[in-house]
Amino acid sequence: MRSSPLLSQLMEALRCLPGVGPKSAQRMAFHLLQRDRSGGLKLADALQQAMTEIGHCQTCRTFTELEQCAICSNSKRGESAQLCVVESAADIAAVEMTGQYSGRYFVLNGHLSPIDGIGPSDIGLDLLSERLANERISEVILATNPTVEGETTAHYIADLCRQYEVTATRIAHGVPIGGELDLVDGTTLSHSFAGRHRLS
Amino acid sequence: MRSSPLLSQLMEALRCLPGVGPKSAQRMAFHLLQRDRSGGLKLADALQQAMTEIGHCQTCRTFTELEQCAICSNSKRGESAQLCVVESAADIAAVEMTGQYSGRYFVLNGHLSPIDGIGPSDIGLDLLSERLANERISEVILATNPTVEGETTAHYIADLCRQYEVTATRIAHGVPIGGELDLVDGTTLSHSFAGRHRLS
Ligand SMILES: [Zn+2]
Ligand SMILES: [Zn+2]
Repeated sequence: MRSSPLLSQLMEALRCLPGVGPKSAQRMAFHLLQRDRSGGLKLADALQQAMTEIGHCQTCRTFTELEQCAICSNSKRGESAQLCVVESAADIAAVEMTGQYSGRYFVLNGHLSPIDGIGPSDIGLDLLSERLANERISEVILATNPTVEGETTAHYIADLCRQYEVTATRIAHGVPIGGELDLVDGTTLSHSFAGRHRLS
Repeated sequence: MRSSPLLSQLMEALRCLPGVGPKSAQRMAFHLLQRDRSGGLKLADALQQAMTEIGHCQTCRTFTELEQCAICSNSKRGESAQLCVVESAADIAAVEMTGQYSGRYFVLNGHLSPIDGIGPSDIGLDLLSERLANERISEVILATNPTVEGETTAHYIADLCRQYEVTATRIAHGVPIGGELDLVDGTTLSHSFAGRHRLS
């Protein structure tokens, strides 16, 4: 028995968040009501604004409410001749965290998946072709996920790069640093052997 | 470097939720943007409504947007002569889940804490006295938390009940069902021994 329809509605709505089940939805709702109503109202506004105003960067397709995202409109990064292709905007955050890459990005917002009817134009490859034709790009770094679809997509884009005489590279996959060999799955380990390189 | 101020604002705002750190805030924001904008908008509305419209039941002080919550306005439960006192509205949900209690409730929305300046009227004890004086209540079940403050509050309310010649009972504390004796802390185990009862 619920004491309040609005409270039930809030608990239900919170479950749209990944990893939030009935139990944590309840804990969240009570926490906000009891201790942080102003935080709850700020979150309502932030959600409202983000869901309605955030679109995609016209250059790299990442999330932004502007025509161009902060990275694409950064002139220093615009000078780079490297373009890193990722499946999702979240991947940009992960690459940025490494602090090792200072080039540009292109976000597919998905991967090729003929079975789901997702073809080249659905993942922005017409826009990518345009960029390969018109921009000074010397290397496309393919950082799609190491899944069947991610690999297929990487190979498709590598073919596209060949047409524009641009080098395509694939990020390395193998045993994670700090990981233990006997805990790594067989596919990763095979990849790791196939991708071995000389040390001396 | 963030590609979008609104996205940063959303990630920041999501951290008002208990248990949500920077990493899960990011995952939540991207999930909503990529896959569930309508869910995000529904959540914005639910938060807005809940934070502004939910107040407290005039009878039991639980959260509700109505004058009286669903439990207090349920005539069947109003017939009960039992009143269960809990510290927070979330505790009602926990008791209801047991399916074992069909009486009424009273929510303190806190506990006595002289050091924080929280006295009897701050936890609604004037309203509780009124109820003890005017309603047909035969037993007050004290289900405050087994903490120093919860115990103090329980004893204070027990004294109050004595004035109105109403029986006050305290819920049992001890080794949890399914718990193992050697994993239970010493205080709980002492409680468990002190609260022992005859089996034959
Ligand atoms: Zn961009
Ligand atoms: Zn009520």
